[in-house]
Amino acid sequence: MDHYDIIVIGCGAAGYNTAVRASQLGLSVACIERAQAIGGAGIRTGCIPSRLLLHASEMYEIAAKAKHATLGIRCVPTLDLSQMMRYKTKTVENMVRHATQLLGRHRVKVIPGTARLAGSGKVALTGPDGLSRIMSGRAVVIATGSEPIPLPFAAFNHHSILHSADALALDRVPRHLAIVGAGATGVELASLWRRLGARVTLLERRDRICHWLDRDIATALQRALRRQGIGIRLSADVVGIDTRTGGVSIHVCNAPTGEIATLDAEQVLVAIGRRPATVGLNLASAGLRAGVDGELPFRPSPCADGIWVVGDATDGPMLMSKAEEEAIACAEQIAGLPGFVNYATIPNVLYTSPEVAMIGKTEDELRATGVPYRIGYCPLAVSARATIHGTQTGSVKLIVDARTHLIAGAHLIGPRAAELISQVAIAVEASMICEDFARICHPYPTWSESVRQAAMAAGGWMMRT
Amino acid sequence: MDHYDIIVIGCGAAGYNTAVRASQLGLSVACIERAQAIGGAGIRTGCIPSRLLLHASEMYEIAAKAKHATLGIRCVPTLDLSQMMRYKTKTVENMVRHATQLLGRHRVKVIPGTARLAGSGKVALTGPDGLSRIMSGRAVVIATGSEPIPLPFAAFNHHSILHSADALALDRVPRHLAIVGAGATGVELASLWRRLGARVTLLERRDRICHWLDRDIATALQRALRRQGIGIRLSADVVGIDTRTGGVSIHVCNAPTGEIATLDAEQVLVAIGRRPATVGLNLASAGLRAGVDGELPFRPSPCADGIWVVGDATDGPMLMSKAEEEAIACAEQIAGLPGFVNYATIPNVLYTSPEVAMIGKTEDELRATGVPYRIGYCPLAVSARATIHGTQTGSVKLIVDARTHLIAGAHLIGPRAAELISQVAIAVEASMICEDFARICHPYPTWSESVRQAAMAAGGWMMRT
Repeated sequence: MDHYDIIVIGCGAAGYNTAVRASQLGLSVACIERAQAIGGAGIRTGCIPSRLLLHASEMYEIAAKAKHATLGIRCVPTLDLSQMMRYKTKTVENMVRHATQLLGRHRVKVIPGTARLAGSGKVALTGPDGLSRIMSGRAVVIATGSEPIPLPFAAFNHHSILHSADALALDRVPRHLAIVGAGATGVELASLWRRLGARVTLLERRDRICHWLDRDIATALQRALRRQGIGIRLSADVVGIDTRTGGVSIHVCNAPTGEIATLDAEQVLVAIGRRPATVGLNLASAGLRAGVDGELPFRPSPCADGIWVVGDATDGPMLMSKAEEEAIACAEQIAGLPGFVNYATIPNVLYTSPEVAMIGKTEDELRATGVPYRIGYCPLAVSARATIHGTQTGSVKLIVDARTHLIAGAHLIGPRAAELISQVAIAVEASMICEDFARICHPYPTWSESVRQAAMAAGGWMMRT
Repeated sequence: MDHYDIIVIGCGAAGYNTAVRASQLGLSVACIERAQAIGGAGIRTGCIPSRLLLHASEMYEIAAKAKHATLGIRCVPTLDLSQMMRYKTKTVENMVRHATQLLGRHRVKVIPGTARLAGSGKVALTGPDGLSRIMSGRAVVIATGSEPIPLPFAAFNHHSILHSADALALDRVPRHLAIVGAGATGVELASLWRRLGARVTLLERRDRICHWLDRDIATALQRALRRQGIGIRLSADVVGIDTRTGGVSIHVCNAPTGEIATLDAEQVLVAIGRRPATVGLNLASAGLRAGVDGELPFRPSPCADGIWVVGDATDGPMLMSKAEEEAIACAEQIAGLPGFVNYATIPNVLYTSPEVAMIGKTEDELRATGVPYRIGYCPLAVSARATIHGTQTGSVKLIVDARTHLIAGAHLIGPRAAELISQVAIAVEASMICEDFARICHPYPTWSESVRQAAMAAGGWMMRT
């Protein structure tokens, strides 16, 4: 019987990072992957293809924009979508190859097949040849990731009713793409296809987009998306979808009034969320029961004797960065080291334009808990870098705990937000008070200065206004 | 006699930031400006025009690059340089207006004219009308900035022998631009004009470009600039310049061999440095004597009874960010508060492509002082963000003090370096040890992750290789 220190089920971000860290710590690791290639949704069908097409479409949009002409650059770009998609495919293949080599260098055994728990420290593997065998491990790590949730009344058909992976592999720009759900996937894919020329309508059941965002930022993002020509219908509950030749008819119930209207579109992307992919693991054999959405607990300790869960298969935000943190902590704990995930300092980013990034609490959350706070607000318009780029909108909002002067939350919208949020993460991890943050010298002219200016603003001495 | 708490001589970045901070602290301030508008070299003729044209030329280069076609974006851009220059002029005017309004909101009196020290607490002002009067101030702040240094044998003629401000206002792309001095101004303006289509040759007296950079980074930058088609001649001492119809002939002595060769170019930019503009201030009346380059000391206390010096007029790097730090510290000290500049954490940035940013010590400096250190090195090529952008080069190099595990220096080359360096500044200011820095969760996929990966590398556990 094959024996390893760790058997990892699933070789996406959570799985391969667990394997790499465990190998660094001297443990023997096998990763079981049921898909044709390792990498998971993160590399193969979700995060990376999405970020890549967001980048490419942003480049296209920049070239097409009037702003370019203002700078003295005249060009009329044309889009070659099939080339863009080839670039995506090739890049994903490169990243899969890179991850494969990485595991090879760390002597991680990658085994194709499907795994089921088979009692304490045992995993039943069914290979692509249909043959089964039992493997044993000191620890078993479930890293099976997540899958898109369909609407109960409309299964994915992959040509007119799409999930996110479908919507990242279209062979032409849809005339009208409707998107059910204005969460991260919804707004990012709306941005992407709008930039490439599609008419896009977002349908959101709640009365706001991206409900977890600070309310000011959500409002600013909503305004920006609408200005880009993206239709946004709020309190819009999709109650039925009819497919018809050349498109779909979407029946939308207006939540407050109960009125039902029909929206015709060429394609509909269902982006109402993802659920942990934990079905078929034979959890009961280990005395485990998944939560309502299929998730298993990670806090960060084994969820049953010798069984760990990391990444999208557990609860919490479905982010590759969070998966990586859990992977590292899990491997370290299995190796007998302290391992820890500080969920309070995991940033959350939207790669829309403008970009959005947040860390910590929103203003509503602080208000609800009765914590006294001050706001440090810096509009990007006062920054020299924004003036150079002709950027009028965007802002940095810091929420400072009035009792401790620690930064309780940071909410950025505008260029480079995804890069700048880590500044705040470091300050928070260092328990740096806002007054000290306001003293950090930043290069001029950069976008990053605005974070400092917001810290100054919290202390009442912003220099730029 | 007009009396103010503070009289500031010069209304560039150092001057107006002193004025704004002092006004915030309740002091009355007058700023004397001899130029036609406030803003100084930073806003009007140096930093901002340079960064703006670097941005615009980068946009042009991106549009023209083959990489664009790889992404599926077809376009052939044409350059309208006069429009680009109009955008520059308009933006600079906007920024001057913004600074003027800022001073107005802070009730700072801006007075046109030329100032001379006139004994303790007194300044003689000569207005544009030629009339003189005496003003008095509790403190006098010299913020007169800097000016480009000419070659001793070749005065600026502004059409073929240029200083940096000239080279930021050309009305057509030079066929061949020679640049004397491969410092910050040299490499940035080389980048700019090369991107817009000029042949560019850098002539550097030393055996390396940008001598203050960490040697690895300087080498990488030099390689990148050469790959972009910029000619770089090292150990090349310019000993004479002849102007002739349609160009200049530059006589260059090869330092090791002593051989003299001639380089013909259409125009030559002399970028051998700047010197403090402290002539004509009647320093002797205050018992002050400037250093060899004209600089006055700031450390950070008055350099004579009631007289302070901030920004380029004092010593240290000529950076707007450093000027702003000194301005704030100066105003706070005059107001009786503690005021402090931590020169060790002022980042230094080159807005070339790739961008370069550094903070703290270079490896050579550490080696020279005998401090034991470890290197944390992360090539950008292993980052997902770089893969998405098709970026093969660039790196993050952290130098960690082996005795304390504090970050002694950070050296970045690659996209967004200018934005990322502030992360390190915060960690350094917080005295965060490298092990803790390596634990900060960064969003995926971002450029900023590579800084963390370098910190992991310093601890021997980089996850991406």
